[in-house]
Amino acid sequence: MNKDLQSVKIIPLGGLEQIGMNITAFECGNDIIIVDCGLAFPDDDMLGIDLVIPDITYLQENRSRIRGLLVTHGHEDHIGAIPYVEQQLQIPIYATKLTMGLIEYKLSEHGLLDSVRRKVVSYGQSVNLGCFRIEFIRTNHSIADSAAFAIHTPAGVIVHTGDFKVDYTPVFGGVIDLQRFGELGKKGVLCLMADSTNVERPGYTPSEKKVGKRFDHLFDDNRDHRLIIATFASNVDRVQQIINSAQKYGRKVVLEGRSMVNIMNIAAELGYIHVPDNTLIDIDMAKEYPDEKLVYVTTGSQGESMAALSRIAANIHKQISIVPGDVVIFSSNPIPGNEKSVYRVMNELEQKGARVIHDDTHVSGQACREELKLIYALTKPKYALPVHGEFRHLKKHKELAVEMGLPEENVKLLRTGDVLTLSEEFFEITDHVPAGGVLVDGLGVGDVGNIVLRDRQHLAENGLIVVALTLDALTGKVLSGPDIVTRGFVYVRESEHLLEECRMVIWDTMEKIGEKKITDWGRIKNAIRDALGEFLWQRTKRSPMILPVLSEVE
Amino acid sequence: MNKDLQSVKIIPLGGLEQIGMNITAFECGNDIIIVDCGLAFPDDDMLGIDLVIPDITYLQENRSRIRGLLVTHGHEDHIGAIPYVEQQLQIPIYATKLTMGLIEYKLSEHGLLDSVRRKVVSYGQSVNLGCFRIEFIRTNHSIADSAAFAIHTPAGVIVHTGDFKVDYTPVFGGVIDLQRFGELGKKGVLCLMADSTNVERPGYTPSEKKVGKRFDHLFDDNRDHRLIIATFASNVDRVQQIINSAQKYGRKVVLEGRSMVNIMNIAAELGYIHVPDNTLIDIDMAKEYPDEKLVYVTTGSQGESMAALSRIAANIHKQISIVPGDVVIFSSNPIPGNEKSVYRVMNELEQKGARVIHDDTHVSGQACREELKLIYALTKPKYALPVHGEFRHLKKHKELAVEMGLPEENVKLLRTGDVLTLSEEFFEITDHVPAGGVLVDGLGVGDVGNIVLRDRQHLAENGLIVVALTLDALTGKVLSGPDIVTRGFVYVRESEHLLEECRMVIWDTMEKIGEKKITDWGRIKNAIRDALGEFLWQRTKRSPMILPVLSEVE
Repeated sequence: MNKDLQSVKIIPLGGLEQIGMNITAFECGNDIIIVDCGLAFPDDDMLGIDLVIPDITYLQENRSRIRGLLVTHGHEDHIGAIPYVEQQLQIPIYATKLTMGLIEYKLSEHGLLDSVRRKVVSYGQSVNLGCFRIEFIRTNHSIADSAAFAIHTPAGVIVHTGDFKVDYTPVFGGVIDLQRFGELGKKGVLCLMADSTNVERPGYTPSEKKVGKRFDHLFDDNRDHRLIIATFASNVDRVQQIINSAQKYGRKVVLEGRSMVNIMNIAAELGYIHVPDNTLIDIDMAKEYPDEKLVYVTTGSQGESMAALSRIAANIHKQISIVPGDVVIFSSNPIPGNEKSVYRVMNELEQKGARVIHDDTHVSGQACREELKLIYALTKPKYALPVHGEFRHLKKHKELAVEMGLPEENVKLLRTGDVLTLSEEFFEITDHVPAGGVLVDGLGVGDVGNIVLRDRQHLAENGLIVVALTLDALTGKVLSGPDIVTRGFVYVRESEHLLEECRMVIWDTMEKIGEKKITDWGRIKNAIRDALGEFLWQRTKRSPMILPVLSEVE
Repeated sequence: MNKDLQSVKIIPLGGLEQIGMNITAFECGNDIIIVDCGLAFPDDDMLGIDLVIPDITYLQENRSRIRGLLVTHGHEDHIGAIPYVEQQLQIPIYATKLTMGLIEYKLSEHGLLDSVRRKVVSYGQSVNLGCFRIEFIRTNHSIADSAAFAIHTPAGVIVHTGDFKVDYTPVFGGVIDLQRFGELGKKGVLCLMADSTNVERPGYTPSEKKVGKRFDHLFDDNRDHRLIIATFASNVDRVQQIINSAQKYGRKVVLEGRSMVNIMNIAAELGYIHVPDNTLIDIDMAKEYPDEKLVYVTTGSQGESMAALSRIAANIHKQISIVPGDVVIFSSNPIPGNEKSVYRVMNELEQKGARVIHDDTHVSGQACREELKLIYALTKPKYALPVHGEFRHLKKHKELAVEMGLPEENVKLLRTGDVLTLSEEFFEITDHVPAGGVLVDGLGVGDVGNIVLRDRQHLAENGLIVVALTLDALTGKVLSGPDIVTRGFVYVRESEHLLEECRMVIWDTMEKIGEKKITDWGRIKNAIRDALGEFLWQRTKRSPMILPVLSEVE
């Protein structure tokens, strides 16, 4: 028997240091499979960046060995980078029906639908890819059709939970297949890779149905008011519950926001949402109905500046404007980093007379501590690899795994790019491959990096001063200038005097340069930068970027 | 009797739209008093701004009528702008002892200590200023010596709570003087101005002592590890409890962070903190003790990038570096907007092997719903003016006031600059004065405004391209250039081709300009901006700032 086949490698190519951007490679012998292929949203210090996708250098180098991409569920942090990666590597995709529907929508937007092979997989089915057999297992999450994978390898079974929770009363489909987790555990699980997001929260995540009850009460309490409910476009079950309450309380439902409309169309087409006749109406038809007979379901629950709800709050939405008495429900929690934007939208809505409700209107899609323990108790893995969370979550997850009886050395905290080799006898980081985030800005993929970002940061905080000088090519004498242009530094009109002084400083500097007979442009520019920088720091305690621009004329 | 004296005006000059920056003027007849004078920290979109102070145009115009500045407590959002305002208006200051100590420290830093009259006031004492008598009432808050004011005016009594909570077992000093609130209410309170921050939270805020018990348990559980506790420098009582636990469990205490050391010095000098002999040691002495006999108390609990804890986490602190096993306690909650920075610091600490603890290690300093109701029940005001909170909090506070029996028209939500006139018979907004935030950047106060910020935003997101051209003054012909300099746009090395195309676009444009015989520099610059902007948008879907710089040579 081939010795190589008795061990398997796990390589997270994203998702550990950069939150979101989940993508993991599994290698065994000559075969590679990939689980998930998500994007991340930029951090605050990634100025001007639209999104972040994984660095797939390693996959490009091993292209011929890649057998398939398997996707756990249809959230952006798991599917968002698929078009970018499929443009480079045409990898066959395997996913459940709704997940595939959302992937296909993305592919078609990028004109890639015809060039990528795809196969819809049902829960309980397996996919054979080289020496791997990947079994799809039903889970619960905040989007329907989420799957965990049992990855059967010659070295043993690796269970990857994907994002999951335990919902005994889900809105759509069945309860997470706990029996199968148990069965796998009984036969022996080599390694468990489980979701860490909520590891700090005690107890259990409440059922999605709890939100449905709350909606009923809110519809009942607010019979005389128009309702606007903001939630994640991908939370099909949440929208289903809004539709259910709307039908019960005799309201028409208007979907608003591009991604909301798109995802609901896909979900309806594939049978993941049940819309009774005459419930859904087009936004243009809304004016035919009295306010209290309408409920709007919108995007923008995270305060995203261009989303429907933010436009409504800022009074720049074409069809919807807030009238006093409107009730706006945030059916979501702010994702860390979005708090201020969310609160700003809430304040704007309240200032226009709306009543904002955001308590008990959301449940998480991810497992809390007791649910994680349940999965450990069912699978009883030999090794554990915490995934999906910030480092502090992964570490708390490790503590939980140790609490559940795993020896400390059998739980590893990986960094993006680490190569973990494991078998019954072996569990070590054996290598490191290039991995990380690639920044996307407009059409540019990867052409903005640290230097560009550092410049943007400098410009953002201090603005700039351009110093233009035209020199005589022969004598080096100043023929024209110094002309000074500033942006983002000070009000020019009120700072004429300061800018005049800047010109004096430059004149002095150029005089010294002349005396010293310096002709090297690099040295001239540095001298201007140093003198002007020093002067401005003394006078203003600020450090604008100083850009000397020299030209010469013969 | 002077009819003017039967009504009083309340003018919030800050603190309503811009969180923090609390400052309110009260006017009666010819007299003006000011309550608090705080600063605000900049919003995310105020790029490069250090802090925000109130616009005091109205006070400058009415300088001769101002009788005094009364300060409720020593937090930055209530005292931070005092040096800036006192530089303009030399107003006598009235505050309790600790509050005054903190104010004096600020004044001395700005060289203003000799030019400002000051008077320390005790709880129960009153200050007579023109037709006002301001009575200082004991409250509880997250800083000692906090006061509420009963402002006695000819029109009636206005009660301003300041920031407060009800703490039946405070660490320092007595319980909030609920009896006096009741007594005032019995006699008749015209208007209540109360803290709105926690109005969304049900129940009561726990006592500060609760944190002390938690500290004892954490000291007990972690006898073998070094402890680092981050908290607000101004929370003297919190530090007192750390010192108490340290003494009990035989550790030396090291204070670290400039504001932590400064405030504790002031607090110790004024008798607001009790430090047993040989407990506090200098940071340079720490190496003489084993790790498990030390507890560091640091600033940086909000993830502020230059604070002690952030420097420790980033491994750039001179004296402290994390060793595996260190226990870091965050004795604070993230202020909205700071979440991501706080989590980043936590992740960095955990990555270096520290264990981060942040559950049950903090209590709020502000009243929850039941405490607010208690103050309403005691004071039974005729009118209410919710203060201190975002708009959504003020609005929820209004609902609470109405629940407590006030007619809706007797509760007003003001905006910064609104002039509210009130008397027994009258309660209306009658005027509006200039008010708002003034941005401070380095030494510049108010020289950065919307245009500068918009430029910074543009530069931050897209970077810039400088296009330098030298023209013949007589013929308008291009003598030198176009030279292109970019910053924050793309990697120049990898984009040589793109920049070469930019030069071509400019050449084309200049040719057309020559043909059309355009000589006006404004039009030339616009033509370059338009052509290059259009080209770059098509090619990159980005909009860098384009700065044409023209010079001429004869």
